[in-house]
Amino acid sequence: MSKVTADISMSLDGFITEPNPGSENPLGDDPGRLHDWMFDEKTATDAEIVDEIYASAGAVLIGKRMFDVGVEPWGDPPPFGMPVFVLTHESRDPLPRQGGTTYYFATGGLEAALADARAAAGDKNVGIWGGANTVTQYLQAGLLDELQIHVIPILLGNGVRLFQDLSPAGIELTKARSIDTPRATHLRFSVLISRDDRDPDRRRD
Amino acid sequence: MSKVTADISMSLDGFITEPNPGSENPLGDDPGRLHDWMFDEKTATDAEIVDEIYASAGAVLIGKRMFDVGVEPWGDPPPFGMPVFVLTHESRDPLPRQGGTTYYFATGGLEAALADARAAAGDKNVGIWGGANTVTQYLQAGLLDELQIHVIPILLGNGVRLFQDLSPAGIELTKARSIDTPRATHLRFSVLISRDDRDPDRRRD
Repeated sequence: MSKVTADISMSLDGFITEPNPGSENPLGDDPGRLHDWMFDEKTATDAEIVDEIYASAGAVLIGKRMFDVGVEPWGDPPPFGMPVFVLTHESRDPLPRQGGTTYYFATGGLEAALADARAAAGDKNVGIWGGANTVTQYLQAGLLDELQIHVIPILLGNGVRLFQDLSPAGIELTKARSIDTPRATHLRFSVLISRDDRDPDRRRD
Repeated sequence: MSKVTADISMSLDGFITEPNPGSENPLGDDPGRLHDWMFDEKTATDAEIVDEIYASAGAVLIGKRMFDVGVEPWGDPPPFGMPVFVLTHESRDPLPRQGGTTYYFATGGLEAALADARAAAGDKNVGIWGGANTVTQYLQAGLLDELQIHVIPILLGNGVRLFQDLSPAGIELTKARSIDTPRATHLRFSVLISRDDRDPDRRRD
């Protein structure tokens, strides 16, 4: 069955960008080390995990900031090869690219964007691929089935934190899989939302 | 050869205490979930890891706050069974307990406390067991050989962060081991300090 899955690379100290991200260098100083496991330093196992992420997804959903940062380096054809829904407040016509990627701009909020992405994904998964705010909004809203975090053995000290603004009451994770490679520990969690915990009148002791 | 190793349990979002730690509840709300892997929910593999931590250490080094919080619940005999050095500014006589534990109060700073602990540990390791501030001070000072983090599949949202005040320039981690159990992912890193990076005049481009 189609699932909603999030995938994101995070340093051991919790960051998903390098230090000092800004408009000139949106991914921070020395970008790349968080994603070396997918590129220059990938092992056969890392490559299988990348393939699995792409093969299981029928549509991708990302935040506007990630789109703004990525659209130029991703080029044409972009690496997605499938519809990409961009969560935004600005209405804009779809932007077709070569190789199966079309960027759609979803202005109806979290649930409407997800419904559109689900429809486009068909039997496959919707992949929420970032950034931090988009992943945690879907997590907190109880709309994520799975969260896969690629824990990278580096310490960054500052940058954008994945879980900066999360209110985790009621979110229960069950570890579904753990695969270790030299450049990443790939941890997959099933997400369960215990609604009782989210209602202060019915909170457990 | 004797090594200096740190061991600490950390939630997936980076905390080593539960939310809202205070003087009344120093470990925060609902304490225990970070350490269930050592107690109520331990598997045979978790138990082996606990045994290994205790068996490899000849002396323990902890921060003053951890001592203040722990000394009562640890009781007599405490669970250490070896000398425990408490990093503090207050001079105080050693506090002998049953079963091989004596608390020593080390007022000479990081290096002097470690030298005393090394001497007490003999051929065995010095185990730096917390809290966050003590672990990161030794890490940052280049005095740690190994860092073992037990990543717990829970989201806490607030509490004491392990890497709150770390300046990680020049700290390089190499993953030495990863063992996964349902309640923890036990990640062990070798720590290397690249002194060039710590000297601003000799920094790499």
